[in-house]
Formats: sequence, C-alpha cells, structure tokens
Amino acid sequence: MTDSGKSSVLVIGLGLIGSSLAKALRLQGNHVVYGFDHQENVHQQALDLGVIDHAVADLSRPPNIDVIVIAVPVMAVPSVLERLKPLIPSLKAMTDVGSVKGAVVEAVQKTLGELPECFVPGHPIAGAEKSGVTAVNPELFENHMVILTPLPSSKAESVELISSMWESCGADVVQMDVARHDEVLAATSHLPHLLAFSLVDTLARESENREIFKYAAGGFRDFSRIAASDPTMWHDVFLSNRDATLKILRRFQADLSQLENAIERNDGDLLLTVFRRAKSARDFFTEILSKRRQKSK
Amino acid sequence: MTDSGKSSVLVIGLGLIGSSLAKALRLQGNHVVYGFDHQENVHQQALDLGVIDHAVADLSRPPNIDVIVIAVPVMAVPSVLERLKPLIPSLKAMTDVGSVKGAVVEAVQKTLGELPECFVPGHPIAGAEKSGVTAVNPELFENHMVILTPLPSSKAESVELISSMWESCGADVVQMDVARHDEVLAATSHLPHLLAFSLVDTLARESENREIFKYAAGGFRDFSRIAASDPTMWHDVFLSNRDATLKILRRFQADLSQLENAIERNDGDLLLTVFRRAKSARDFFTEILSKRRQKSK
Repeated sequence: MTDSGKSSVLVIGLGLIGSSLAKALRLQGNHVVYGFDHQENVHQQALDLGVIDHAVADLSRPPNIDVIVIAVPVMAVPSVLERLKPLIPSLKAMTDVGSVKGAVVEAVQKTLGELPECFVPGHPIAGAEKSGVTAVNPELFENHMVILTPLPSSKAESVELISSMWESCGADVVQMDVARHDEVLAATSHLPHLLAFSLVDTLARESENREIFKYAAGGFRDFSRIAASDPTMWHDVFLSNRDATLKILRRFQADLSQLENAIERNDGDLLLTVFRRAKSARDFFTEILSKRRQKSK
Repeated sequence: MTDSGKSSVLVIGLGLIGSSLAKALRLQGNHVVYGFDHQENVHQQALDLGVIDHAVADLSRPPNIDVIVIAVPVMAVPSVLERLKPLIPSLKAMTDVGSVKGAVVEAVQKTLGELPECFVPGHPIAGAEKSGVTAVNPELFENHMVILTPLPSSKAESVELISSMWESCGADVVQMDVARHDEVLAATSHLPHLLAFSLVDTLARESENREIFKYAAGGFRDFSRIAASDPTMWHDVFLSNRDATLKILRRFQADLSQLENAIERNDGDLLLTVFRRAKSARDFFTEILSKRRQKSK
C-alpha cells in the first residue's frame, strides 16, 4: 500500500496488453501504477498517454510494490524474473499475461528455484493485430475472458487479488489447470495462427508480385487477418507450447488428409458430412459470441 | 429487347448472388427482369422483395429474353441448360456466376454439344455467409471484382454486354482464362474454406459439448467465419475444382509440415522467417483492401 492507501502495481512490459491493463487500473483511481519497459523511450510515451503514474528507471531499485504484472513475451520472462528476485518476498501477488502457461511456470521455477506463493499465472484472452504502447486501450478486457491457472503453491489471497484486478477491468475470470490451458489455447488460438501464417506464406511464394491477393475477397480477408500478428511473439508461443501445438496440429493434419482423400476420390458424402458438422459448430460459436455481446450492452 | 425498348434479363436461381444481381439491374430501370427458381415459393418472395419484375413459371415456355444469367450451384448447371436449349440460339448473351469455371464450361459443352457464341463464363467475387433470396443486397457487387473468362467461341458483343452489365452494378471487371481463374480461386478462396471447415470440425470433435469454443477469441472468430458457409455449395466447389484445389492443398500441406518440423526441432529461425514473410504479404493485402475502400468512398 502506498501512503495514500492506494494499492501499488508495477506493470513490466508496456506493449498492448501491459499498457491497456495499466491504463484501465489507473483510470479506476485506487491504484498507483508504475511501469517498466526494456525500451526506455516507451517510458515517456506511456507517461504522455496517461498509461502509468511513474516509470521505473531501474528494476533493481524499485519502489514499494504490492502487485507485479509481467507482460513481456514468454521467452523474456526469465531475464525479467532474474532482476525481480529481491522484490518477490514482499509482494502480495505476482501474475503474468503469457499465452502459454506451462513454459512460464517452468521459467519461474528454474529462475527462482521455487514457485513463490504470491505467483498466480494468468492469461487474458484479448489482443489485436496492433501492438505497442500506442495501441493502448483500457477497455480491451471488457467482456473478454481471463484464464488464471493457480498453482498448488499459490496463496488464496493472491489468487483472489489477481482475480479481482481483472474483474475490475470488466473481464470474466475463469480458472483451469496449466496443462488444460495450454491445450485449449493450442487448439483455439495457436493452431489457427500457424495455419494463417502458413497459408499466406504459401500463397505469397506462389504468386509473382503477390498478384494473387488482388483477387481475394472477404472470406480470405477475415481468415488471414491473424497472419499480420507479431512474428516474434508468435515465434515464442510455438517454441514454448511445443507439445500441445504439435498434438493438435497432427490431429488437424490427419483430418485434412481425409478431406484431401475425399476430394481425390469424389466422395461428396464425406465432404458434406464434415462441412455440415463444421457449420453447426461454427453457428454454435456465433451464438456464444452474440450472447457475450448482449451482455456487454 | 422488349416493346418498351428495355433489355430483358432472365436470372435463373434466386439465391444471394442471383437475386442481388436481379435487383441491382431492376433498380437501374432499363431492364425487364425475369426470375426463375427451382423452389417455387421463392418466386412470390422475390416479387414481394422487388427482386424481379416477373417470375417464369415454366422454363420450357419462356418469354423473349436477351440475356440469361445462370446463378445456380455449379453441379445444377447441366439440368438448367437442358431446359434452356431451345432458347439459346436467340440470346444476345448468356453467363453464369459459378465459383469454378472449368467445370461449368465442360458442362455446357457436354449438355449442348457445343459452346454457344453467346456464352461468356463469369464469376463475381462477392458473397456472404448469408444465403437465399431474403439476403438480397443490390449493392453486393459495388467495388467487388467480377472475373470473366471469355472462351475462343465467345462473341465480342456478348463479352461486351456481360461486362457492361456487371460494371453497371458497380463491379470491377477483369478477364482471365479459365484455368488461371480456377487456380487463383483454389488458392484464395477454396483452400481457405477447406481449412476453416476442417479446423472447426477437428476442434468440435475434440471437445465434449464444444466447450472449447468458450475460450476462443477474436482471432478464431475471424479465421473460422467462413466455416459457416453453405455446405452444399462448397461440396460442389471442391468436386468441380478438384485438380486445382488438390494442387494448392498439397503445396500447403508440404509447407505446413515444414513448420511442424521447425517446431519439433526448435528451429526458431525458420518460424521467424516464415511469420515475417507472411506478415509482410498480409500487410500488403491490407493495403490493397484500404485502396479499394477509399475508391468506394
């Protein structure tokens, strides 16, 4: 707690997620929000944009902090933790926002030699193709899901604190275990991104001067939008969630080969069966989305 | 020409594309628009919605017609042609709107025993997940591309007539040969639809009660939107554009396997290279789209 009775939060990594959370908390008025980014020029931008109250120039000489949010790419977590070590025992809670949870937990265990009781891994299911502090959007988490994966080592008070923090930003918080999170995300997010990157690359290499894209329509536009996502972030995701991604990727490849065979041997029945089943599942997903939208009105 | 000096157009198949074209032409005031659909109850709906001036009850006893537009699923083309046979010699032009051109040309040749000089194959690159006459939208083609694939047999006047018809609806008309069309569409439309259907089906079968979709976010929403498309129409597309689809599908599978191997052996460099190349191509596509949007303002 600061002198003012406000809770003090340090957000490390002022990208889209970090700065959006920082600004949302700041706008609530009951937090003092500190920020750190490895690119020093981001500090001034974050101050100018009202994202943070104070920039922390040196992570090894930090102010009094209640809560730390680590919002850096998954593979940068260990180097951040290294510098936070002395700070951790006095924290009320520490969380992260990585798209992969198993690798983050492993990195914490390895870097700190233990899993501190204040640590509650988390993942807001929100994002955009835009990135960086200038994309800051304090409403980014409203009616979005945040998955927390509390560990056996996590203190109940810390779980409660992180949970309330996200709820105060309008998010729906759910809990699941680390392995389940990584499987679910491999299927609903990581694999679709891999397919979009892969298809756009295949087409670009097929086509002289990318001329083929001139003839692409709305379906392709929507399908391929995620191929504009940040390459470095996604590189980290696939290397950190290797096993779960490979598992669902291989299942997908097997299913796709069945469709290939069906086209090859003119098996219209199989195609119709799969397309109908897919359409029904996608229509179900549309229903979920429209319920979520109604709730936000 | 009708007595009024208006051109008479018969649209066969009053789905989304057929009825949107019919209504666009009707609103221009210089066409008498006739419509036919194999579902008879659609005739009254089309009249009520102002899509057509007259319904044709019996295709074998048609009125005087200048232009015929065949807007039925690709595999229904032969049975329509069979009934149109007597009408064709007196037409100024005949076109279709099928997503596949090779199979349509083959069907015309086979059913009629020749390629009539009035016949100009065409494909408006427009559509939506909505279908049927109630989805009618006379602005559907504005600033969308229409690809015509004139044949050696096509009369110049017929090509000109069909081209002007689409331009009068706001479309950008381009010409290419049949094989190139089918390759381009296999890559930019057919393969993405196959991947979306296939992925949604894989996930739905993975997950009890489709619970997994609850955790899917905006990226998945956009990526999978086309999996809600009409199963029958797409069944026809894959069976009719088999060779071109299989060719690009196999290239995609090979490229995807390379990414799979890269993840497996932790080859971050390859992942980064592919993701960056894909992002750059997708950013290029975004530019094309924004230029198109500006033009429509």
